[in-house]
Amino acid sequence: MRVLGVDPGLTRCGLGVVDGGGAQGGREVRFVAVDVVRTPTDAPLATRLLGVGDEVERWIAVHRPDVVAVERVFSQHNVRTVMGTAQASGVVALLAARAGLPVAFHTPSEVKAAVTGEGRAGKEQVAAMVTRLLGLAEAPRSADAADALALAICHCWRAPMLDRMAQARERSAELARHHRARLAAAAAEAAARRTALGGGALGGAGR
Amino acid sequence: MRVLGVDPGLTRCGLGVVDGGGAQGGREVRFVAVDVVRTPTDAPLATRLLGVGDEVERWIAVHRPDVVAVERVFSQHNVRTVMGTAQASGVVALLAARAGLPVAFHTPSEVKAAVTGEGRAGKEQVAAMVTRLLGLAEAPRSADAADALALAICHCWRAPMLDRMAQARERSAELARHHRARLAAAAAEAAARRTALGGGALGGAGR
Repeated sequence: MRVLGVDPGLTRCGLGVVDGGGAQGGREVRFVAVDVVRTPTDAPLATRLLGVGDEVERWIAVHRPDVVAVERVFSQHNVRTVMGTAQASGVVALLAARAGLPVAFHTPSEVKAAVTGEGRAGKEQVAAMVTRLLGLAEAPRSADAADALALAICHCWRAPMLDRMAQARERSAELARHHRARLAAAAAEAAARRTALGGGALGGAGR
Repeated sequence: MRVLGVDPGLTRCGLGVVDGGGAQGGREVRFVAVDVVRTPTDAPLATRLLGVGDEVERWIAVHRPDVVAVERVFSQHNVRTVMGTAQASGVVALLAARAGLPVAFHTPSEVKAAVTGEGRAGKEQVAAMVTRLLGLAEAPRSADAADALALAICHCWRAPMLDRMAQARERSAELARHHRARLAAAAAEAAARRTALGGGALGGAGR
C-alpha cells in the first residue's frame, strides 16, 4: 500500500510518500519521496490554494498513491493560521477524492503515538523516529517534511486496525439488524396467534 | 458585473447570484438565482467536499459569474463546525480560481453593514433587506440562502471601493518608488561630485 501523507498548510505544506506492508499487517515501511510546497505569504489566498492544489495533484499523478492521509486540523491551537491550514486541507481532500482516492484523517497525537509511542512527543522526536523507521541517511530538513512522512507511516499502521474496526462495526450492525428482524417476526407471530385465537373463539361457537 | 456569493458550509452551503451596477458604481442589484447545497452529516468529509465542489462548479458553468465572493470564516465562533466551514471555503476558492475567476472575501460584519447599515444586524434583518433590495416576492427560505445573496450584493457595492483603494495603494507605491529613485539619484550625484572634487584637487595640482 502506497500512502501520500499531507501536513496541510499555505506557507509550508509537507508531502511525503511511503510504501507500507498493507493489509497483511506488516510493519515494514519504505521511503519513496518527500518535499515541502511553499506559497508566498503576500499572495492572494486563492492563488496560494491553487499553488498547493496543483502540487498535490502532481504528486498524485507522479507517485500514484493508494490512499491520501491528511492531518486533521484542530481549531484550538494557532488560531491565527488555522483557517488557512483548514482551507488547504479541504483542497487536498477534494483533489484526492476527485482522483478517486480514499482520504483518511489522523490527529497530530495519533501520528505521534504511532511513530514514537507517545502522543505528546516533540517535533525532534518525531523527526528522529521517522529517520530511523525509514532508514534515511539524515533527518528530513524541515518539521513539515518529517510530519508528512510520519502521517504516511501512521496510516500504514493504523489502516489495518481501522479496517478491522469498520468490519466489526458492520458485523455488529448486521447482528443488530438480525436481532430486530427476529423480534419483529416474533411480534408478528404473536399477533397472528391472537387473531387466530380470536377467530377460533368465534369460529368455535359454530362448531 | 455578475457575482456568485457563497456562504460556505458542509451541512448547508448557500449560493446566490446577483447582477450589480459594476464599475460605474450604480447601486442597482438584480436577482438571478439562489439555492442551498446540502450534504449528509454522516457522509465522509471528502465526499461532502466533493458534493459542495461539484455544485459550485456547476453554478459557475451555468451562471458564468465575473467574480466569486466568499464569506471570510473566523475561528472565534462555532468552533465545532468552523473547521468544516473553512475546508468548504477553501474548496470554493480553489474551484473559482481554477475557473479563472477572481475570488473576494468579505467578513460577516462587512456583509451586514453593507446591506443593513449595521455590522451586528440579525439574520432576519439581513433577510428582510435582501428581499427588499432584490424586489423578491418573498424572503429566501433559509438564512444561508439570504446570506449568500447578501454577500453577492455586498460585493457589488464594495468592489468599486476596493478597486479605488487598490488603485490608491498602487499610486502611493509608485510615488514612493519615484521618491526613492530621486533620493538615490541625488545621493549618486553627491558621491560623483565628491569624487570629481577629490579628483579635481589632485588633478588641479598638475595644472
